[in-house]
Amino acid sequence: MRNLLITMRFCGASYHGFQVQKNATTITQVFQDAVEEVLGKRYDIKGCSRTDAGVHANRYCISMKVDDACTVPCQGLVRGLNAHLPGDVVVLDCCEVEEDFHARYNCLGKRYVYKFHNAAVRDPFLKARVYHSQSGIILDAEAMNTAARHFLGSHDFSAFCAAGGSVEDKVRTIYAAQVYREGDIVTFSVTGNGFLYNMVRIMAGTLLAVGQHRLSSDEIPNIIAGMDRSRAGLTLPPDGLYLDDVFYSPDQLPRQL
Amino acid sequence: MRNLLITMRFCGASYHGFQVQKNATTITQVFQDAVEEVLGKRYDIKGCSRTDAGVHANRYCISMKVDDACTVPCQGLVRGLNAHLPGDVVVLDCCEVEEDFHARYNCLGKRYVYKFHNAAVRDPFLKARVYHSQSGIILDAEAMNTAARHFLGSHDFSAFCAAGGSVEDKVRTIYAAQVYREGDIVTFSVTGNGFLYNMVRIMAGTLLAVGQHRLSSDEIPNIIAGMDRSRAGLTLPPDGLYLDDVFYSPDQLPRQL
Repeated sequence: MRNLLITMRFCGASYHGFQVQKNATTITQVFQDAVEEVLGKRYDIKGCSRTDAGVHANRYCISMKVDDACTVPCQGLVRGLNAHLPGDVVVLDCCEVEEDFHARYNCLGKRYVYKFHNAAVRDPFLKARVYHSQSGIILDAEAMNTAARHFLGSHDFSAFCAAGGSVEDKVRTIYAAQVYREGDIVTFSVTGNGFLYNMVRIMAGTLLAVGQHRLSSDEIPNIIAGMDRSRAGLTLPPDGLYLDDVFYSPDQLPRQL
Repeated sequence: MRNLLITMRFCGASYHGFQVQKNATTITQVFQDAVEEVLGKRYDIKGCSRTDAGVHANRYCISMKVDDACTVPCQGLVRGLNAHLPGDVVVLDCCEVEEDFHARYNCLGKRYVYKFHNAAVRDPFLKARVYHSQSGIILDAEAMNTAARHFLGSHDFSAFCAAGGSVEDKVRTIYAAQVYREGDIVTFSVTGNGFLYNMVRIMAGTLLAVGQHRLSSDEIPNIIAGMDRSRAGLTLPPDGLYLDDVFYSPDQLPRQL
């Protein structure tokens, strides 16, 4: 078997997440359709993350084992897949990896970003690509950045986990966390060894409360320590959430602060 | 009657143009729906232009006559409409105008832009918002700019008019035309007193041929003079086309070169 690591980028606005679902178009489905067009066979794929409906990816990795008889070169596969994928999904790269490599199990960390559009008037061209707060309040990105730094390190993030998850151990390590403004866009960037269900969207909702001065950044350590979901902020919509990078080698990870 | 001039911006990707159509969602329909929610009545509206399916607007003007009994202040109407419009349509402004003002008949000129995305890899977040040329050729924006300057002045633009238009007089005056690059985006900007059916999209297709060195910029005057549609370039898709501005006063127009 040849094992391929394929890197892609997609706008999730029109998709019901990554994994195959009945009666809903997913990234897996359009990707497998394209593979079938190019290689003549529907192959099983392993995605690095189970992204929810509407969530985007600047960099998403999948691994796919193909028959040895399939000798198409990696760059030929990139071109072929891009010719058959819809305009909101693009393959960036493809390379051969060890046979036991698995895009999800071998993942050592991920970076997510959450984008707030902070302007008096919404931007119609960014619909479903950013979170637009209707309130018209100028977000205090500096206070949000101070708050975000309290996420750093290893903590039980039960307060930032949606109900319904099956994971027992809710301790995760955050290697980097910051908030910065570029024009009308305020970005929350967070890198960790793993994330609980809806964790980044709840972190973003909590930072939104800080940015709107409804919550003090000093409260974040108490919210983490309380392990009570009701004390953290709202779960923000998927519109602003991007899987930004995926790390497979320890030296790619930010040094822990 | 109060006559209102309302300025809006929209992403046309999900719409079948501006004018009402059966079995297809148009900007007029969602706008009238929002008006009905806010004012309790479905009013007739006059748009400045009949934009095609998929065409965008950075600035689009409509006029709407409402009953004198409707005393809602202009800024209140802006807020109300924005609360009821979908995320890809936004009202920027509203003001009172003379009773005989008509958004289309009073229009003295318009500026359109056509955006080419010129990168080896398409951007999934710009799907239906730019024209992405799959060829991977680096567009010669300087040659395109030289070609665009040949459009300046008053000409019979029959060579740049799609079949099926009912307009007799095909002379139009172009006040400004240029092509410039900003990173991966090459923009064609053109201001005129009016535009024939598909005129900007055919101009853009002709400039694309120049940018790819399939056509010399020196040929543009001959193509205009020939008045033969088959000698101009392809009609490019609506994805890259934006109505950029609408002019109602002579001093807003660029001085003719």
